[in-house]
Amino acid sequence: MDIIEKLRDIVGERASAAPAERLCYSSDASQVRGTPDYVVRPLSTAEVSDVVGLAAAEGVAVTARGAGTGLAGGAVPVRGGIVLDLSGMNRIVEMDLANLAVVVEPGVVQARLNETLKPHGFFFPPDPGSAAFCTLGGLIANNGSGMRSVKYGTTRNYVLDLEVVLADGSVVRTGSRTLKAAAGYDLTRLFIGSEGTLGVITQAVLRVAPLPKARRLVIASFNSAEEAGRAVAATFAAGIVPSACEILDRMTVAVLRRCDPSLKLPDGDVLLFEVDGSEGAAAEAAAEIAALCSASSGAAAAASVAVVAGSGEMEEIWAARRLVGAAISRLDPAKSRIYVGEDVGVPIKEIPALIREVAEISDRFGIPAMKYGHIGDGNLHVALFIDVLDEGEWARLAGAADAIHRAAIRLGGTVSSEHGIGAARSGYMMEQVGSGALSVMRAIKKALDPRGIMNPGKLGLDDGPAEVGGSGCSTGADGTPGGTS
Amino acid sequence: MDIIEKLRDIVGERASAAPAERLCYSSDASQVRGTPDYVVRPLSTAEVSDVVGLAAAEGVAVTARGAGTGLAGGAVPVRGGIVLDLSGMNRIVEMDLANLAVVVEPGVVQARLNETLKPHGFFFPPDPGSAAFCTLGGLIANNGSGMRSVKYGTTRNYVLDLEVVLADGSVVRTGSRTLKAAAGYDLTRLFIGSEGTLGVITQAVLRVAPLPKARRLVIASFNSAEEAGRAVAATFAAGIVPSACEILDRMTVAVLRRCDPSLKLPDGDVLLFEVDGSEGAAAEAAAEIAALCSASSGAAAAASVAVVAGSGEMEEIWAARRLVGAAISRLDPAKSRIYVGEDVGVPIKEIPALIREVAEISDRFGIPAMKYGHIGDGNLHVALFIDVLDEGEWARLAGAADAIHRAAIRLGGTVSSEHGIGAARSGYMMEQVGSGALSVMRAIKKALDPRGIMNPGKLGLDDGPAEVGGSGCSTGADGTPGGTS
Repeated sequence: MDIIEKLRDIVGERASAAPAERLCYSSDASQVRGTPDYVVRPLSTAEVSDVVGLAAAEGVAVTARGAGTGLAGGAVPVRGGIVLDLSGMNRIVEMDLANLAVVVEPGVVQARLNETLKPHGFFFPPDPGSAAFCTLGGLIANNGSGMRSVKYGTTRNYVLDLEVVLADGSVVRTGSRTLKAAAGYDLTRLFIGSEGTLGVITQAVLRVAPLPKARRLVIASFNSAEEAGRAVAATFAAGIVPSACEILDRMTVAVLRRCDPSLKLPDGDVLLFEVDGSEGAAAEAAAEIAALCSASSGAAAAASVAVVAGSGEMEEIWAARRLVGAAISRLDPAKSRIYVGEDVGVPIKEIPALIREVAEISDRFGIPAMKYGHIGDGNLHVALFIDVLDEGEWARLAGAADAIHRAAIRLGGTVSSEHGIGAARSGYMMEQVGSGALSVMRAIKKALDPRGIMNPGKLGLDDGPAEVGGSGCSTGADGTPGGTS
Repeated sequence: MDIIEKLRDIVGERASAAPAERLCYSSDASQVRGTPDYVVRPLSTAEVSDVVGLAAAEGVAVTARGAGTGLAGGAVPVRGGIVLDLSGMNRIVEMDLANLAVVVEPGVVQARLNETLKPHGFFFPPDPGSAAFCTLGGLIANNGSGMRSVKYGTTRNYVLDLEVVLADGSVVRTGSRTLKAAAGYDLTRLFIGSEGTLGVITQAVLRVAPLPKARRLVIASFNSAEEAGRAVAATFAAGIVPSACEILDRMTVAVLRRCDPSLKLPDGDVLLFEVDGSEGAAAEAAAEIAALCSASSGAAAAASVAVVAGSGEMEEIWAARRLVGAAISRLDPAKSRIYVGEDVGVPIKEIPALIREVAEISDRFGIPAMKYGHIGDGNLHVALFIDVLDEGEWARLAGAADAIHRAAIRLGGTVSSEHGIGAARSGYMMEQVGSGALSVMRAIKKALDPRGIMNPGKLGLDDGPAEVGGSGCSTGADGTPGGTS
């Protein structure tokens, strides 16, 4: 009996080896490509367990996938094998709000969870730009976060317990519903951010937080992105913790206003500070930040400052902010944004230096670079765009992305703050974490997945050379050309 | 050349095999006992690295120790070998407040760090009862927390990077100063809470938080501890997150008032809710909690409610709260508190059930039980006390502690919320985490410490039977009788 028949014995018609199906699962939102040999859509932990058990017996690779919104190829099967599409495991299993907990399957979309929680007065804080599409399983596997992590922390702060199918098909639980525990190794946090290389997450108990009663938005405009960066550092130095702290550089602002001319954004390089809490606390914090930004002397002096209190206007600006990634093509219809070098992060006080370096790299390689992102975490999303029909631009793009990654590492930062390493940034792991830490990661990988079947070719864990170029924008393992998402 | 000479080659006179020295390092604040063969007091990472390298070559166990305030025998060398006393590595290496970071050696005492941070307007939130004595290395190795974790989270939320000496003597770094990173396995969180079984922490980069501008304390008294437990659940259900939420049952209140008759604590079972933020926000939140507690109907109705705003009075109450552990002997001079079954935790809504069960267990075994602790995390510190000269009381104590641990597990909780597993609770690990998760922990242990030299006999990781009884109150591996701390 061949493998596809054995897979059909487990999930019936939800297993396929048809070329068209396989092609549909050969990419995510990155440039990484790799075609699976089999596509399986499990609907239960038992099915996942059986499929992984079969894969272990047959020595076939298994790559878990949610919505495919990843920007680093984490869900792309660069070594073939089975893609496990978990988007059908999308039940909110239990609302246990008296324990501040919800139990979810991995295929639940982030925004759906928050819509469900809202009437109860709670929310799940990790809030990536892809919240409307991305699944919680992917968010957990990547330790995703988004704009509110500056106050609320990343996904790892909101997972109490995971159910995981290990590389031998066995099922373990990593925690409990207790808010605080000191009982052995923190397996929950080990699986969070492991990008499917240690096991498949089949259920999660998430901690939720009470929705703040009020929010305010401070919009401050600066004469340069570097100056805005200094204002962020100054805000932190003053001991203020906003619930979001975003930068939109002048090019990003221009693009957003072209998309929506009614949008109330000032000229220049713009910082958006959101604060939350009670009515009084939010108003007070907003006034404090506004005063700090408009101080007439010093590095943090803004060209303009406004405080937005209306939730409608605030929502409009956040909705526009979420569309930056897509809206960028409006700047020049002949150019497309390519997601490489898009997620670097540095320690807060290095933000001005990073902004300066990115501008210099953009000039040097002749690749336009828009800068926006979660600057309160030191996380800068750089949007590089090119004419995809121009071979020379692809080469310069690779050079620019590589230079941006190396600049982040040199500044004591990271090649990825929240999008993950996947296959795209796999080649940077040695330089990023050092040979000692990488050896530890490889030892853990080997201990839990001795045959190397769980999402191979990711995180720099395999001994062989990385499948995709260090810049993260060469073609995939199977030679298909990079797309343009 | 024998081992002591080799150790002296590394650290000179800071290595000893003298019986008196060895005895000094044979206990912590728990009942666990075990005498080391060698005591070494390193002063640098290089020395730790050399000592562990030697231990690896010789196959000798290495147990790291800070201030010895642990309540589970984590720092007790139950299998002999080398105790590494890290209390001499006590430098605050760097104050990098522009990055919200400080760099510390493991022997820095928690309170000293916070005294150093205070003039700069920052603090390190994890705040155990032993803050005045415990070292940061121990806090990290145990994922310690204390009363403010209900809002601020545990130690694991405040570690950006660790320097660790691995079982082969090599030195790795696990993170960076970047606030947010998604770059491979979360080794930082793997070492946090690993209780020295995977390596020795020799330096840490900690994230600090801005000191809140104001605090308020709501003191609410209830007719039963169970009723107080219901009020906690109701507070969370209302979406309020206090910065601390402590319970002192009526017996604890009586003890504290006997220690300090001027202490402004009401009769009954008392909840202390602390809230923090700006002046306005703190006042508003305090009023809200007070209103909720004094609601005339429903489960949460308090007998009395008061709001304390003065920092002097607040400090007095918190100082008294910190002394509970020690003060308890005032209740009956013939009895001593024994730290067993002292750190259970359950999901929030099970708090009333846990309180009920502990009271029933106390009655059944005839062992008085005071209940206090971080009830906002579901963490109840049970104080059991006995006449240590009475053999029968020891046996009943063991039975009571075991029943408390089992009740916590049965209620979906944990045998330790923050004190750790160590040797004292090692026997519960299988029941606590399940055989699957324990196998994963053992595989990780084996991968990173194949010879099993790092703090053996802890966390239920060794294949042999646990050295100390499941109740956590039998004698140590070397047969010395349990003490009374």
